[in-house]
Amino acid sequence: MSRRAAARLVRRLGPLVVEAPAARGMSDTQYGCANHTVNSRRRFHWIPSPQHPQYRRRTMGTYDAEHSANKASEVHKRTFGTAATHIQRNPAYSELNSDDVSYFKSILGENGVVQDEDRLAVANVDWMGKYRGASQLLLLPKSTTEVSKILSYCNSRRLAVVPQGGNTGLVGGSVPVYDEVIVSLAGMDKIISFDNVNGILTCEAGCVLENLSAFVENEGFIMPLDLGAKGSCHIGGNISTNAGGLRFIRYGSLHGNVLGLEVVLANGTVLDMLTTLRKDNTGYDLKHLFIGSEGSLGVVTGISVLTPAKLPSTNVAFLSCNDYISCQKLLLAARRNLGEILSAFEFMDDHCIDLAMRHLEGVQNPLPASPYKFYVLIETTGSDESYDKAKLEAFLLRSMEDGLVADGVIAQDISQASNFWRIREGISEASVKVGAVYKYDLSIPVEKLYDIVEEMRCRVGDNAEVLGYGHLGDGNLHLNILSSKYDDNILAQIEPFVYEWTSAQRGSISAEHGLGLMKAEKIHYSKSPEAVQLMASIKKLLDPNSILNPYKVLPQSVL
Amino acid sequence: MSRRAAARLVRRLGPLVVEAPAARGMSDTQYGCANHTVNSRRRFHWIPSPQHPQYRRRTMGTYDAEHSANKASEVHKRTFGTAATHIQRNPAYSELNSDDVSYFKSILGENGVVQDEDRLAVANVDWMGKYRGASQLLLLPKSTTEVSKILSYCNSRRLAVVPQGGNTGLVGGSVPVYDEVIVSLAGMDKIISFDNVNGILTCEAGCVLENLSAFVENEGFIMPLDLGAKGSCHIGGNISTNAGGLRFIRYGSLHGNVLGLEVVLANGTVLDMLTTLRKDNTGYDLKHLFIGSEGSLGVVTGISVLTPAKLPSTNVAFLSCNDYISCQKLLLAARRNLGEILSAFEFMDDHCIDLAMRHLEGVQNPLPASPYKFYVLIETTGSDESYDKAKLEAFLLRSMEDGLVADGVIAQDISQASNFWRIREGISEASVKVGAVYKYDLSIPVEKLYDIVEEMRCRVGDNAEVLGYGHLGDGNLHLNILSSKYDDNILAQIEPFVYEWTSAQRGSISAEHGLGLMKAEKIHYSKSPEAVQLMASIKKLLDPNSILNPYKVLPQSVL
Repeated sequence: MSRRAAARLVRRLGPLVVEAPAARGMSDTQYGCANHTVNSRRRFHWIPSPQHPQYRRRTMGTYDAEHSANKASEVHKRTFGTAATHIQRNPAYSELNSDDVSYFKSILGENGVVQDEDRLAVANVDWMGKYRGASQLLLLPKSTTEVSKILSYCNSRRLAVVPQGGNTGLVGGSVPVYDEVIVSLAGMDKIISFDNVNGILTCEAGCVLENLSAFVENEGFIMPLDLGAKGSCHIGGNISTNAGGLRFIRYGSLHGNVLGLEVVLANGTVLDMLTTLRKDNTGYDLKHLFIGSEGSLGVVTGISVLTPAKLPSTNVAFLSCNDYISCQKLLLAARRNLGEILSAFEFMDDHCIDLAMRHLEGVQNPLPASPYKFYVLIETTGSDESYDKAKLEAFLLRSMEDGLVADGVIAQDISQASNFWRIREGISEASVKVGAVYKYDLSIPVEKLYDIVEEMRCRVGDNAEVLGYGHLGDGNLHLNILSSKYDDNILAQIEPFVYEWTSAQRGSISAEHGLGLMKAEKIHYSKSPEAVQLMASIKKLLDPNSILNPYKVLPQSVL
Repeated sequence: MSRRAAARLVRRLGPLVVEAPAARGMSDTQYGCANHTVNSRRRFHWIPSPQHPQYRRRTMGTYDAEHSANKASEVHKRTFGTAATHIQRNPAYSELNSDDVSYFKSILGENGVVQDEDRLAVANVDWMGKYRGASQLLLLPKSTTEVSKILSYCNSRRLAVVPQGGNTGLVGGSVPVYDEVIVSLAGMDKIISFDNVNGILTCEAGCVLENLSAFVENEGFIMPLDLGAKGSCHIGGNISTNAGGLRFIRYGSLHGNVLGLEVVLANGTVLDMLTTLRKDNTGYDLKHLFIGSEGSLGVVTGISVLTPAKLPSTNVAFLSCNDYISCQKLLLAARRNLGEILSAFEFMDDHCIDLAMRHLEGVQNPLPASPYKFYVLIETTGSDESYDKAKLEAFLLRSMEDGLVADGVIAQDISQASNFWRIREGISEASVKVGAVYKYDLSIPVEKLYDIVEEMRCRVGDNAEVLGYGHLGDGNLHLNILSSKYDDNILAQIEPFVYEWTSAQRGSISAEHGLGLMKAEKIHYSKSPEAVQLMASIKKLLDPNSILNPYKVLPQSVL
């Protein structure tokens, strides 16, 4: 393509400042495992406050006729979605009695002990409606001391516990499997301090991510993570599941951003590691054990986190590439040339674009005449609007001249930028409109990331449509297989092949969603027997009675 | 200050591309605890290869008359520098016998089993000459399998082991205390792979950091860490000590940059976690246990690490501020305005500058007429030379107009930039020329970071000179107290006050050096009893016979 043609295609169209994530809609973090079409508004405020006037209507509307959930005796062996996990209730756990309830009331007060059927029904099910427990008790501690007393008591009584944040998880990790006591952190939602020189936020675990974002943005900083579920998810849940999300490529993992934690162990011991230091090499850095262990080693009650400075300029480009190797080369070039301002590098194949255009209302194809096979969305975030835009344009011109980019456009305003993001973020939403969708969230070395999509197309043939898209910059593929209805024959073509293939590439069968209940028994596809054994030893060390979030994360056979 | 005056002071003087770290000389990571003036060349190549023709001359030159070190029977209770640590040899450990040596020769060959007095003398002492052990055996495995066989055997025989990398540590962590077997990783120095799309390096633990830097720079990337000791230190040692260094403010902690590890546990189990994935949420992220645990939980044998793209443009400015609050405000403004290109923010007080000018040869004061109290060095690294420089200049002009910066200059060439860095990095070198220097490496919340310097001045009065400098951007203070000779009365004014004061601020008594032998018994100043107890439980779980790096990291009382 000539420089002139390239210049024509890359339109520079006036000033643009986009608060990108807020404009984006849902992320795959949120939709990842949904096998059902859900009301998109629900996902943002899943557990309504009991004080909320719409509480009863919403919960009843969602879960009418589900009241049997409050009777533990009705719990039987169940099938969990396509995962087909069969787990027996562990008889070592006690069953809740009235003395237990009285004790909890003595430490939490009447308002902190919830036995109401409707409220329990909400807390017993995940937002997808895929995993449903039968807890008879929801506890709402207001302090770390109360959490400590709850766990100490449950440990001595061998009452199993499921810690619950915003309950926006996708793998059944945040709801009971049987009659576990639900300990919600929703009542612990205070910001403790903010260091506005270093951008260090300290807060309680029940703070909603969106509220924290608003708070720190007002101080000139941003949270280092952003999720589609931010309106509901708790920072404590984000930490406990090591949430990835939209800012990962720029700001990296929570293991790098979390500075301190306060955690209550299974026996009630409060582990105060809530420092606000960027550097601290005194002994083992224990906090990392609790980042991503899905509440199975302790309950996170307090967090200090490093927040980056908020930068004023965001630009978004939508591009097409002729082949996957060009996408890879473009990623390399973007890292090199956009360097410090690159904030997103997402890719989609042509099946995704076709699907989005068919099923997403109000979305326009930014490159309507393009018969290309791959599409890439690049976002930059920096401190200088005109410079950043010029830099992005120069990069795109070079990439076109080098043949990496076939066609492309830079958003001229917030509306266009939102449209670009809507296509990328709307793929999940569009895919569930087809009928059945088998969804996988895989980490795979970038050079092999698209191979599984093509192999899967060969396997399923005309029986299903295969989409490949995701966070290319993070090596994170979302593989979706669509058919008109769920069909065991199709599933047999997919599993266990998808796990075996990923394992053979030394990939991860859960890039950012965790294992929860859904994939606890599949951990061996991504971790060695020695590693799983050590995890089990650590679980036994920290939670010898195994009261914390049972049946999840690790296979039952090693515990 | 008027805009015109400010413009005059900020000189813009032609193109500048600096490969900054290589030009900087030593970091405090290296000098931190040195109480002796050392040959600056020695620190870069501490353990010469046995094949090196100069080996014998160098080691003899360094340690002549130290041959008694090879007799375990001569080991007695000793005093370790100012730390005054008295530790008895643990009688639970076996003593080495000829059968042990025969076994090691059977798995490593003759060349892998070193009993030569000279070579042992080198490996028995740290680079400062402050900590000296009495090991009779140095093992040089060439593979993970060999490391596994060594540890399995030592564990069954209860032979204590000290893993050793480049032996550049500052807290006595990398040398034996008594007769521990030294397991050097120097023979495991192969690069395994490099993913030049994502910048992911996989290598063996014995690779020298400088060699890795050269390798990835040739591929267009940089290592995410850089230390003054890079010419000798091993990446395995960097991981095991969670090294901080010069790029921390920009690229953060190794907990965020290390993607995978291979570790051999005390019983010889090989823990293969050597993935190259940016995202992997399958079970507990065990690798973090081994980052910063100073070889006491396992021996790191393999590493995969994310390397950032190499950016071509570096600029360095040297500034003065009237007071500490201005330094803090300047840091905030730099984070906000330089944002994505800020790569260093170092500060020094006037005592440091005076000292550097008195004792460092060939160093010039960039602001010779300035009677200011504080000095700040700012470095930017980005992808666009002219833009980056213009951005830095604009920022400095604004900062001068706002009264944050009193005076300042931007380096016009590599020579000037090196001079600026030489002042900052030369403070440690200059301080040991005075006579005695008591050195502390503290993490303290930035707003209180300079208080300890002023309090210390009040305490020691005219008996000593107190310097404050360090990585302000990381909240990391280097506190040096200088006097003509070591004096217990001065020490009594400093300790335990410095630890108590740091503890009261919830600071860290070891920001980046680790605890090693020097501060193992002082961990309680920075960690809660519950946390220390859990560390001890994890130590016992992973190393029940406590063979790995004994007497270090954790207090003897909890093991």
